[in-house]
Amino acid sequence: MFVNYDKLRRDLIGIAIEGPSSGTLSGHAIGEPFDKLVSKCIKEQFPKNTFRQFEYLNFLFSKNKDAITTEARYKLFNSPTIMFLLSRGKSATEQWSPENLFQEKQNDTADILVTKDDRFELIDVKTRNLSKNAQPPNIISAYKLAQTCAKMIDNQDFELFDIVYFQIDWEQENNFLICKDTSMASLFLSNPSELYINWAAAMQIQFHVNELNQDYKGNKEEWSRHYLKHFTDEARNRSNMMINKFVKPFEKYIY
Amino acid sequence: MFVNYDKLRRDLIGIAIEGPSSGTLSGHAIGEPFDKLVSKCIKEQFPKNTFRQFEYLNFLFSKNKDAITTEARYKLFNSPTIMFLLSRGKSATEQWSPENLFQEKQNDTADILVTKDDRFELIDVKTRNLSKNAQPPNIISAYKLAQTCAKMIDNQDFELFDIVYFQIDWEQENNFLICKDTSMASLFLSNPSELYINWAAAMQIQFHVNELNQDYKGNKEEWSRHYLKHFTDEARNRSNMMINKFVKPFEKYIY
Repeated sequence: MFVNYDKLRRDLIGIAIEGPSSGTLSGHAIGEPFDKLVSKCIKEQFPKNTFRQFEYLNFLFSKNKDAITTEARYKLFNSPTIMFLLSRGKSATEQWSPENLFQEKQNDTADILVTKDDRFELIDVKTRNLSKNAQPPNIISAYKLAQTCAKMIDNQDFELFDIVYFQIDWEQENNFLICKDTSMASLFLSNPSELYINWAAAMQIQFHVNELNQDYKGNKEEWSRHYLKHFTDEARNRSNMMINKFVKPFEKYIY
Repeated sequence: MFVNYDKLRRDLIGIAIEGPSSGTLSGHAIGEPFDKLVSKCIKEQFPKNTFRQFEYLNFLFSKNKDAITTEARYKLFNSPTIMFLLSRGKSATEQWSPENLFQEKQNDTADILVTKDDRFELIDVKTRNLSKNAQPPNIISAYKLAQTCAKMIDNQDFELFDIVYFQIDWEQENNFLICKDTSMASLFLSNPSELYINWAAAMQIQFHVNELNQDYKGNKEEWSRHYLKHFTDEARNRSNMMINKFVKPFEKYIY
């Protein structure tokens, strides 16, 4: 991995940001300033290699101005897996121009990416209010991750990228939000068969970063195949559960 | 139905409320003041019969102080269907006391209820920003509605209650939000087989109130059985789709 997360942690613990001027401290509103602060700190470590996801797309397309069709632009990504994770939809990609740059999008895969020597570190920042006992946040769509694993295997893309989650634990003190602790976890170091999939919440994998185990011993190909086993088992269970819970009890009422 | 929705519409169109002092105009933040305004207008029509859902629970338990166990409190509801729709969980119900009243809860079934002669009109207020082309909002859990229909049939509770959705269309003008239009729709007058169920979004039924058809001709028992047919058909389809989309394409990757 590129980023020195110990240094990042030292940079951030104790940092205060101004709280919102009014209203509730909801997840998204709070997350954003901390997320931008993490970007800034990582950029200090890698000034030329750190991007917001949309900035990377603008950078990639800007330095390849002769690629003007959607296909040509999609070919600029150095693998189908990276293209799947980072690119925007067809019409947005076609409509891109130096005068019509991409903007930040809430459902982009990564908040931050660091890229060097054709390798990618995708970083997603999660924030946690220590004074609330909140549900684990949405991490990534379990289906999107299954598609990613299939593409990794199809293209043997195992050395190309890492996915890292970085969590900021904060507390409010007067008008400031103070970073009290941080955690990081690498997705491919966690046991794939223990990932919790919330099917009713847009199939999102959910966890608190500080609670994610990091003791998986296999390589990324093994991880991908184990994850796909877990995902298909869970999908089959959910499919059966739907018949048992949502169909059978109500059949007697139907004419 | 009790409420005069034509009068409510006349009371509301053109009304301005103060916009939020800062931040984005997100769904919940905007909905609340309009929702409270609708409560106030309905209360003018039925001063003694209009409640927020939690106010009704506090009212019901307060006038029956000798009911102190959870079972005794649950028996105060005049039918199992109404109890299912309006009551809180067991531990919250047990812990209720005149000194520990219920507070508003975001996932209560109804925003407002009007009750008279042992009948109930449950009203849910939806707000729509006319300058955005927003997704249809969450209406009610399709599973909760299926359970409600089964209970209606089991208890022959067809005359006991109605469920009404009232939509406020608003636009921002300077620092004010202006109510430009309103719509109302009765759930049991819509064609149950056309209700859209978003399985990935917590199984929520979703529609814009102004787009809900109102030409169902059957009675409430027929509605309930038609809805249960639709719900079980959709659950079976979703269950099959999960195997086809989330299991089969990935089986070849599994050891």
